[in-house]
Amino acid sequence: MRLSNYFLPILKEAPREAEIVSHRLMLRAGMIRQQAAGIYSWLPLGYRVLRKIEQIVREEQERAGAVEVLMPTIQSADLWRESGRYDAYGAEMLRIQDRHEREMLYGPTNEEMITDIFRTYVRSYKDLPLNLYHIQWKFRDERRPRFGVMRGREFMMKDAYSFDTDKESARHAYNRMFVAYLRTYARLGLQAIPMRADTGPIGGDMSHEFIILASTGESQVFCHKDVLELKVPGEDTDFSSDLTPIVDEWTRAYAATDEMHDEAAFAEIPADKQVSARGIEVGHIFYFGTKYSEPMGAKVAQADGSEQAVHMGSYGIGVSRLVGGIIEACHDDNGIIWPEAVAPFQVGLINLKSGDAATDAACADLYEKLNKAGVDVLYDDTDGRAGAKFATMDLIGVPWQLIVGPRGLASGEVELKRRATGERETMTIEAALSRLTDAQD
Amino acid sequence: MRLSNYFLPILKEAPREAEIVSHRLMLRAGMIRQQAAGIYSWLPLGYRVLRKIEQIVREEQERAGAVEVLMPTIQSADLWRESGRYDAYGAEMLRIQDRHEREMLYGPTNEEMITDIFRTYVRSYKDLPLNLYHIQWKFRDERRPRFGVMRGREFMMKDAYSFDTDKESARHAYNRMFVAYLRTYARLGLQAIPMRADTGPIGGDMSHEFIILASTGESQVFCHKDVLELKVPGEDTDFSSDLTPIVDEWTRAYAATDEMHDEAAFAEIPADKQVSARGIEVGHIFYFGTKYSEPMGAKVAQADGSEQAVHMGSYGIGVSRLVGGIIEACHDDNGIIWPEAVAPFQVGLINLKSGDAATDAACADLYEKLNKAGVDVLYDDTDGRAGAKFATMDLIGVPWQLIVGPRGLASGEVELKRRATGERETMTIEAALSRLTDAQD
Repeated sequence: MRLSNYFLPILKEAPREAEIVSHRLMLRAGMIRQQAAGIYSWLPLGYRVLRKIEQIVREEQERAGAVEVLMPTIQSADLWRESGRYDAYGAEMLRIQDRHEREMLYGPTNEEMITDIFRTYVRSYKDLPLNLYHIQWKFRDERRPRFGVMRGREFMMKDAYSFDTDKESARHAYNRMFVAYLRTYARLGLQAIPMRADTGPIGGDMSHEFIILASTGESQVFCHKDVLELKVPGEDTDFSSDLTPIVDEWTRAYAATDEMHDEAAFAEIPADKQVSARGIEVGHIFYFGTKYSEPMGAKVAQADGSEQAVHMGSYGIGVSRLVGGIIEACHDDNGIIWPEAVAPFQVGLINLKSGDAATDAACADLYEKLNKAGVDVLYDDTDGRAGAKFATMDLIGVPWQLIVGPRGLASGEVELKRRATGERETMTIEAALSRLTDAQD
Repeated sequence: MRLSNYFLPILKEAPREAEIVSHRLMLRAGMIRQQAAGIYSWLPLGYRVLRKIEQIVREEQERAGAVEVLMPTIQSADLWRESGRYDAYGAEMLRIQDRHEREMLYGPTNEEMITDIFRTYVRSYKDLPLNLYHIQWKFRDERRPRFGVMRGREFMMKDAYSFDTDKESARHAYNRMFVAYLRTYARLGLQAIPMRADTGPIGGDMSHEFIILASTGESQVFCHKDVLELKVPGEDTDFSSDLTPIVDEWTRAYAATDEMHDEAAFAEIPADKQVSARGIEVGHIFYFGTKYSEPMGAKVAQADGSEQAVHMGSYGIGVSRLVGGIIEACHDDNGIIWPEAVAPFQVGLINLKSGDAATDAACADLYEKLNKAGVDVLYDDTDGRAGAKFATMDLIGVPWQLIVGPRGLASGEVELKRRATGERETMTIEAALSRLTDAQD
């Protein structure tokens, strides 16, 4: 993408309303624009990142055997009356009347609707296990939305729902999502720690939050240092096998959010192994048994002919929230430092002297070759000052900067800068190309 | 995907409420489930098709130089008061009050919001031309939603908005979208005809509808036969060049919807060149000048220093509607016949004797090899009857059926059936594999 054809409205100053660093950086980098309290437009740079995160989340859901659907944003109030949550949900639910005065709502979550889909079509234990997920916008009418996309009202969530004949098999379903989550966050470039969680209003007796560590995190978390050194399950993980050993390994050591923290238990950990840090919740998984299937009549025939309410779990990842979460974990004073997998572009190509024929030609050639090799390049072909170009690339956090100017070109050389470390290296054009196209594999 | 792990709730009978063939087939093929009047869940098969269409639409928007953003579904009423449309829009607008009693709405379209984004950031003619698009769910509270996804209330639309300094350059922007639309529909496997259109409530003086021909289409259309033989612009079209000749070629001959039909002009066409057919609207493009930029103050500084309201156009494609539109154009008595580019799976692999060790092994091997070659396969590994398996594959319209049974295997052979023609051919396993993996390229 040539910057001259792109829409990247960089702001020089952080707007006053932004209290946390990710919100400030997303506004400054032209990633989002607030349209109303807690409601954002995603500008081109922000939307690229959102879609990359979404795609990684999707791939790991599919790997774990979940099947994608898409439920609508608008739901009927009647469905929520069946579960008893219509009245219980409170002011956070955005309630709507349509032109025929039917009561509707903007879905804050989808347990009721997915249970309705299930009961419509599934009759037999033979069709289980089943896990259906979707990635869709939700609305929660927070009293005081803030922190940008970290706590918006309209937000994108991946929510998966598992259906099983009994608790034992529901536990397998739970474990599959547990492992999928470990893999998802690792691929996003994050260190995430599963922590035993309160089940809250969704209910149930098995639940974990996934917390990423970030010095600017919203809450205090506590864990054993060993958890930070565990190996994330590989691509070759067999999701049809018993995943209990992996889950056990990841839940053995102490790890708790502030709410669930047990001072006495934590004190028993050797002092040099105690980790107390700031964290951000980026996922939450629940097993809640027949809480919805029972009142809503989602039953399946068992092998013995009896009918049984299906055992369910739900599994959420805040996809739009993750954009902010990743920035909280990955930034410095100059701006964002995207992990490669979610970077909006892999390479920022900086033309130090736009208008100079030789420099323009060299840049155009590099741009074309990188694109052909499948590398996402943002080419700053504008006539801005070099200093401003560097600052912009630092701010938007592109992992590699490829700097091309007339002086270097005279000896066939360009400069390659790695955003994460600030490391700069002068090398031939060919060396830079092969470095960047290799990095892509 | 193994059918035993998938969620494909086929219905034996078409539900009574479905009046048109695409609605009936989408319900029978387990593509959608109605959640409320005009509001659908997309089940796995339907969602796959929707996403394939969405991706083709996106690629052609990008090729034409449009830049993707995502605006939220919920908008502030104040924005619509600025353009005067808040009161004018009528009952089709879903109006909402949030917990603080602020007036909001579920966006039926986005002219106001995109104009707001533009005026926030863009100041100079140097930043033009600009075309921003998004693919997002919209809501129009139709009095009587019907015809399934063809006329739903919650629907997915691609809407692009162009910004230019003057009318002449706005015409170039319009032409780029015109050509992008021709390419988009052709890639979707559709024959689409641009027809001069009424500009309706959006206003403006240059507008075309894109109509696909389908014997079950919703409205009568009229055109010169020559239009049906025009060549769609290729991948190598240079969108920075003057596209007027292409647009002229496509708009020279007579083509009109019922509303715009001119009996006298049509009568002048030689009788053997008169085409009168049924059609479905699948896209609509408009140039409307300063209709929104003027009242909303979206101005840019011109080269001469003066300030000028920006010239705009908007360009819509009904993405979810297209799923129904394609089925209307592509089906027979047995079910859907997907064009290759949007098919949910390329190949349906039918195991004629699940449980038979040799057949299972051969199928598993084919399944793995096709997947490895990047072919999307739906493998019917269930223990259903052969007849039912054939009927399902015909119904869901997978382009190729690969039929594997013990008798054929005894002589190393399988059968390959092409859904579109019904043509069946017996061949060796290797021949079938190479046919299917070649077809993929």
